[in-house]
Amino acid sequence: LDDELIRTRYERGNDPTRVLALSDGVFAIILTLLVLEIHVPDLAQGQSLADAIREVRPSFVAFLISFVVVAIAWAGHRDLFAQIRRTDRALVWLNILYLLPLCILPFGASLLARFDRDPTALEMYGLLLLAVAATRLIIWVYATGRSHLLIGPIDQRSRRVGVMLVAVQAAAYALAIVVADGTPRLSLIIYAAMPVLYFVLITLVRDTGPSVAVDRGFT
Amino acid sequence: LDDELIRTRYERGNDPTRVLALSDGVFAIILTLLVLEIHVPDLAQGQSLADAIREVRPSFVAFLISFVVVAIAWAGHRDLFAQIRRTDRALVWLNILYLLPLCILPFGASLLARFDRDPTALEMYGLLLLAVAATRLIIWVYATGRSHLLIGPIDQRSRRVGVMLVAVQAAAYALAIVVADGTPRLSLIIYAAMPVLYFVLITLVRDTGPSVAVDRGFT
Amino acid sequence: LDDELIRTRYERGNDPTRVLALSDGVFAIILTLLVLEIHVPDLAQGQSLADAIREVRPSFVAFLISFVVVAIAWAGHRDLFAQIRRTDRALVWLNILYLLPLCILPFGASLLARFDRDPTALEMYGLLLLAVAATRLIIWVYATGRSHLLIGPIDQRSRRVGVMLVAVQAAAYALAIVVADGTPRLSLIIYAAMPVLYFVLITLVRDTGPSVAVDRGFT
Amino acid sequence: LDDELIRTRYERGNDPTRVLALSDGVFAIILTLLVLEIHVPDLAQGQSLADAIREVRPSFVAFLISFVVVAIAWAGHRDLFAQIRRTDRALVWLNILYLLPLCILPFGASLLARFDRDPTALEMYGLLLLAVAATRLIIWVYATGRSHLLIGPIDQRSRRVGVMLVAVQAAAYALAIVVADGTPRLSLIIYAAMPVLYFVLITLVRDTGPSVAVDRGFT
Repeated sequence: LDDELIRTRYERGNDPTRVLALSDGVFAIILTLLVLEIHVPDLAQGQSLADAIREVRPSFVAFLISFVVVAIAWAGHRDLFAQIRRTDRALVWLNILYLLPLCILPFGASLLARFDRDPTALEMYGLLLLAVAATRLIIWVYATGRSHLLIGPIDQRSRRVGVMLVAVQAAAYALAIVVADGTPRLSLIIYAAMPVLYFVLITLVRDTGPSVAVDRGFT
Repeated sequence: LDDELIRTRYERGNDPTRVLALSDGVFAIILTLLVLEIHVPDLAQGQSLADAIREVRPSFVAFLISFVVVAIAWAGHRDLFAQIRRTDRALVWLNILYLLPLCILPFGASLLARFDRDPTALEMYGLLLLAVAATRLIIWVYATGRSHLLIGPIDQRSRRVGVMLVAVQAAAYALAIVVADGTPRLSLIIYAAMPVLYFVLITLVRDTGPSVAVDRGFT
Repeated sequence: LDDELIRTRYERGNDPTRVLALSDGVFAIILTLLVLEIHVPDLAQGQSLADAIREVRPSFVAFLISFVVVAIAWAGHRDLFAQIRRTDRALVWLNILYLLPLCILPFGASLLARFDRDPTALEMYGLLLLAVAATRLIIWVYATGRSHLLIGPIDQRSRRVGVMLVAVQAAAYALAIVVADGTPRLSLIIYAAMPVLYFVLITLVRDTGPSVAVDRGFT
Repeated sequence: LDDELIRTRYERGNDPTRVLALSDGVFAIILTLLVLEIHVPDLAQGQSLADAIREVRPSFVAFLISFVVVAIAWAGHRDLFAQIRRTDRALVWLNILYLLPLCILPFGASLLARFDRDPTALEMYGLLLLAVAATRLIIWVYATGRSHLLIGPIDQRSRRVGVMLVAVQAAAYALAIVVADGTPRLSLIIYAAMPVLYFVLITLVRDTGPSVAVDRGFT
């Protein structure tokens, strides 16, 4: 074996292309499958369709929350892998671990749609969101700490900001799980409010961090 | 951080590749999921399959209309992103907003398939199509007005033509919603006729605009 | 507008990349959705699972036939687009027309799975396969006759061979439709046998045509 | 025809890009479809959701096992195709053969979820896993033995290790099928334990083989 072949094999074996292809496929399918949980209602005797559709509202709320959760997970995945030049075996499997709770989310959404005031359903949905946050944290810490996987070194501040962003979400979801038993309504509100909070946080981070200077520098 | 790394990071962070991968995945899945709304009929006592299948016709009409709506949305997305060199954070999220009503369309198609003469079903389907048009308008106006995102400047005439194309559709869908209550049949006809009208419009635009000269210049 | 921008726009606007991304997505989803038509059986009183599964056999036959039909359609699509350098608006829409009957195939497979001896089901399945063949013929004739879309000129013999391959399939499917009413069993056998015949045909074509010399020349 | 066109045609006709696009799409969809087999439970009179969800556990186990099986199949596919420079017609179809049992896996998972102690269900699931192993073996032996398809020659030791890895799995699945009739519990445990064993094996292989030296050489 000559050196060039060894190098080619190494680069091809650690190329992130197919990891991204699989992940984008999974994200796209979850985004699209979620709607299957919104069922066309059957009309009861003398019921109008407008009335029947009103009963579908919890399904629609569960759909919207889950859609935004998956979209944020995709955007975070895209931001992380924009920094990544190479994968290694562990990163490939951490990526699959990252996709696992997202793949279960349609079940969680379905549960939430049918039992939107049941503490058990709200707790299980919260556990799924916690798992999404946990796996995101793991892959972030793993990847950003390995310079041979990155296009360039990531400074400690950026790493900590990434951890904080996820930690805030995780804390909110943990709170939602805790309050689900006593005040299920509040639990649901937390799930619905988190994306809004996330956008506020990410805007604050971008507006105060040095990355903004970078962004502006080229636009 | 040296300048090259800053530039690499900026370009990778704003690269449209994964936005397109996610979008094409979503479009492909919607196109394919729509058929799940056409259910194989159960045969009533003494009924032939040929009779039973005739009852599936509304499902088939809803499928075909929705299929063409999604295909047009994809073609429009492809035409827009052929002009785009870079994304920014807002464009990434406007793109997700663009996918949202399309992801709900299978539900709308299912509703239309089951209640094809019910004003509420026709109105909701129309609202979905209006939302598709509205998000298309927003992403078009946003992207075509930001030269740092584009491969080259887009002249005012092309921008206005893009807006007009969507506005005509939106007007037709609004009309279909208004008439749904009194004459549901007409509403359905408008939904079915819009794609035809769209192809006529787009052909007229291409045949009179300067872009045709460009097309011919290289073929 | 300078010349380079016009050229860039033209090439990007007619780039086949996203047409292939959408198509591969659609093919992948159809291949995978087909299995949803095989339902886990409910056990009747005192029935063993082994017995119940035997009743699923028609579903499995419909799945296998449809899987191979879609795989052949994908392979044909890949072979065609390996020759294509650019798309134009018509080719983009002919490609969507090509995907349409394939997207309906899961419904046809479901129909065949449930009513595998009913002439109407067999006829409808045959009509779908005829539509797949017809759209394949149209896109083949259109694309191979336009040299500005191709990586190189395609000789008349190759074009005719492509037409013949599809014509033979179409003729067999037409026959299967005609005999469905009298001998439904024969109709099903034709659907199952066609893929085998197709592989024989394509092997004969490759082994006698000049393309083989090309293949061998580089391996 | 000039030489360059012949060469271009040959390379494009045997380019693996679309084979990977289709495969990644199929893998992504299977990973995501599996969750549809976990059904939201209906509550019996006086039953709490927490109780009802406990009954979903077999579905969840079947989901998890199948998810890991598909993920391993994808990782193996990625490792193989990292070595492949070109496809030929046989490899394209062997790849489709490789995807076939994976596409049926959601049915197997559904069967296992509903009848997790029934020997027939366990045997059929085992047969599917055996088919996955068999097709993996075939494509591995075919591709690694044809140097014109590879980026570089693969030594005999690596080929044998690849065969051994699959053979161990196949043997375990065969055992699980054999014991399913007498001790269904053990059969299920084997299916659940195999992924763990696989990770141990692959780590041992990587740690003792020469490939590790290669890996380390560039990190």
